[in-house]
Amino acid sequence: MNPVNPTKDRIDQLAATLAATHARGGTVNDHTTALPSRREIAHLCDHVLALLFPGYFSGTAVHGNEVAGLLARSLAEGEVLLQAAIRLSGHFGTRPGDAAAPGASKARELAVAALEALPEVAALVQTDVDAAFANDPAAIDRATIILSYPCIEALAIQRFAHRLYLLGVPILPRMMTEIAHSRTGIDIHPGAAIGASFFIDHGTGVVIGETSRIGRNCVLYQGVGLVAWNPLERDEHGELRRGQSNKRHPDLEDHVTIYAGATILGGDTVIGHHSVIGGNVWVTRSVAPGSVVRNKEPELDIRPRRRQEPA
Amino acid sequence: MNPVNPTKDRIDQLAATLAATHARGGTVNDHTTALPSRREIAHLCDHVLALLFPGYFSGTAVHGNEVAGLLARSLAEGEVLLQAAIRLSGHFGTRPGDAAAPGASKARELAVAALEALPEVAALVQTDVDAAFANDPAAIDRATIILSYPCIEALAIQRFAHRLYLLGVPILPRMMTEIAHSRTGIDIHPGAAIGASFFIDHGTGVVIGETSRIGRNCVLYQGVGLVAWNPLERDEHGELRRGQSNKRHPDLEDHVTIYAGATILGGDTVIGHHSVIGGNVWVTRSVAPGSVVRNKEPELDIRPRRRQEPA
Amino acid sequence: MNPVNPTKDRIDQLAATLAATHARGGTVNDHTTALPSRREIAHLCDHVLALLFPGYFSGTAVHGNEVAGLLARSLAEGEVLLQAAIRLSGHFGTRPGDAAAPGASKARELAVAALEALPEVAALVQTDVDAAFANDPAAIDRATIILSYPCIEALAIQRFAHRLYLLGVPILPRMMTEIAHSRTGIDIHPGAAIGASFFIDHGTGVVIGETSRIGRNCVLYQGVGLVAWNPLERDEHGELRRGQSNKRHPDLEDHVTIYAGATILGGDTVIGHHSVIGGNVWVTRSVAPGSVVRNKEPELDIRPRRRQEPA
Repeated sequence: MNPVNPTKDRIDQLAATLAATHARGGTVNDHTTALPSRREIAHLCDHVLALLFPGYFSGTAVHGNEVAGLLARSLAEGEVLLQAAIRLSGHFGTRPGDAAAPGASKARELAVAALEALPEVAALVQTDVDAAFANDPAAIDRATIILSYPCIEALAIQRFAHRLYLLGVPILPRMMTEIAHSRTGIDIHPGAAIGASFFIDHGTGVVIGETSRIGRNCVLYQGVGLVAWNPLERDEHGELRRGQSNKRHPDLEDHVTIYAGATILGGDTVIGHHSVIGGNVWVTRSVAPGSVVRNKEPELDIRPRRRQEPA
Repeated sequence: MNPVNPTKDRIDQLAATLAATHARGGTVNDHTTALPSRREIAHLCDHVLALLFPGYFSGTAVHGNEVAGLLARSLAEGEVLLQAAIRLSGHFGTRPGDAAAPGASKARELAVAALEALPEVAALVQTDVDAAFANDPAAIDRATIILSYPCIEALAIQRFAHRLYLLGVPILPRMMTEIAHSRTGIDIHPGAAIGASFFIDHGTGVVIGETSRIGRNCVLYQGVGLVAWNPLERDEHGELRRGQSNKRHPDLEDHVTIYAGATILGGDTVIGHHSVIGGNVWVTRSVAPGSVVRNKEPELDIRPRRRQEPA
Repeated sequence: MNPVNPTKDRIDQLAATLAATHARGGTVNDHTTALPSRREIAHLCDHVLALLFPGYFSGTAVHGNEVAGLLARSLAEGEVLLQAAIRLSGHFGTRPGDAAAPGASKARELAVAALEALPEVAALVQTDVDAAFANDPAAIDRATIILSYPCIEALAIQRFAHRLYLLGVPILPRMMTEIAHSRTGIDIHPGAAIGASFFIDHGTGVVIGETSRIGRNCVLYQGVGLVAWNPLERDEHGELRRGQSNKRHPDLEDHVTIYAGATILGGDTVIGHHSVIGGNVWVTRSVAPGSVVRNKEPELDIRPRRRQEPA
């Protein structure tokens, strides 16, 4: 024991014990490279938002003839950020078919391919802004929607991350959507395929699973889940069936509205177009187009509060 | 094609395509000035918190005879931050009656008027701290409540943003409450009018709409919604009725308690004073004072799990 | 009135009024020292995460023979951060039995004692990563789980904060779990005692109260609450019974699964081992081991939407 600094002895002993725990548990990243850092991926998310709404998040307005030049510089910078994140992610991916451990040229190719989806993503996110304006009586102007509505941030990030997911990039797409989840309370897996003009009001508690497919002009309120009914389906070897090979989340056709707290479950469940699902409803099977589904008039027990009865 | 750097060619081409998409969609901020930046508004929110709880968020304690001097300096700094944010917001507001595109002197006047509401806001937030202490058995000391309870941050920001809303400042109030929403999971529109001694336990998933009015000494638990029943009411021209002109969210009288996951809907719905609304209840019409409203004893289906039945 | 700068006069007047409001309300921290700052506690949380997953959050990989040395340096730095936070917290704690206003040597002792729990915490969090992999078909690799799953961050912070709570450190443990709550939407009180191999899917809206005890191999989905049934129990003097002296949150035995939106209430409620609680169920009494509890088949009212009926 070190008579001068007994704390140092305890710390050194503790370091050895903790190192042994990590060695047993495999919780050290001892690959040859770092993993993408959350701070850098958060910065990448902000960069994607700035590309999708020039002049809204940059702190300066952008005038007509400056737009293409600004975008060219911003895209070039985005390509550098994205290429680095893809390279770091690629060393760790294990999804069958993933682009594993890409060299610089493969990572650059994937980064440029993802960026080339931005015009299509931008056009989709524009329809989401319009859908928010059309569906929310609290919305007075589009600037407020773009600057502050959680659904716009969540959808902008998810729609871009979905392209990375389709390109087979591991780790990074989910890191991006979880950053959006942390900021907005809206949890959309990057695997979900979402049509144009999607509006999520309030948003906190919304969950959309990996294998959901959502049509055009759908509206969700807070706390709605599109989730798995029996998630732990196993193959003939007893292994969990993972990813897109296990269609376990429901589909919505066009023009479906789902009110707060409703839960739709199961990979074979399809909510037909122009249907309305009421609040708190629990749906485990398909619903024909044009349906209105509500819980039976809830039987409430209403009685006077007794004197001194606590709340 | 650039033989030296083919990526550059693709990026330049992409920039042109993306610029065209933005031109079509109107998603460039091409006004003469920048919009308020989220980072600056987050800083403004932190500044408001520090004014409401001197010495709690500043990293230094404040002794009795220093308080007024410290507040004077902090208010002067706050006036600068707020005036800048109001000017940037004002260029973009389109709400009927909004203070549009204010010059420096008008923006300063609005900023000072909002700051002059701070003593009243501080007195209200003090009652919220007391309400948390009175209602939460996990609360042992007021310092923990002020430093870490999500409801205190959400209410402090909303009560100040509500004054900006009443002054007709566009964009900024909602940006402030959405920053609080992102940090706390509690979504209170700046339009809501909230009485003294309000407590929200846990908080994640709570939604309070723009036209709600809440009395004194109310308590909400996590996941409670005070929301619109039929949000898309239209005027005789088929236009959505927006803002306060469409009273669409419910009112709570004094001493109302609402348990987790309950939803109260509709602009004519009034929950009478001293009423208690049970968890998960769905209420679409008014309730007399002193009522206890619960779902009928839920019929549960309880059976033994079959051998090997999956979870 | 100052003819040169009338705003300054109003600000000075306002500072005096606001100072008087704070003096009345006791909302100035006028103790002799600062309180722990949220920014520093957030930094401490990040430091704990880095100690629990070396090389995952640090931006560099760590190779086998470097691990113990890196951990020794990181633990020494953590001891400094933690000791400072404990000293600042200790000046403000008022929980009966709390270590109040510790001197430097007592704070160092508490900090080292908490750090010495890290190997056990690390071993528990490793089981949480394995549980996520075993229970989530969307999980393809452990790196994504460690880097981005909200439950891992929430559990890592809560499991460490729980040790500080057991050591009687005031304020700090709750500040840490509220930082995790803000980032993840998962609200676990530092008092809750949680067994190995715990998985929370999605997570937003989950609440676990101070006096809950959870066994091994339990799984919760989003929006599940383990909460108080009658929180405001009072002692013979009419005082609220606070903290662990008021067992008010339920217990889960081993291998319990609870689906989205279910709420379990009350300090005497025990969910027996190997039970499954269905979504949205509201449980106020104990359930025998091996039970399956669901709401009776919900009676849905399904009808065709009328022509032109609004959503």
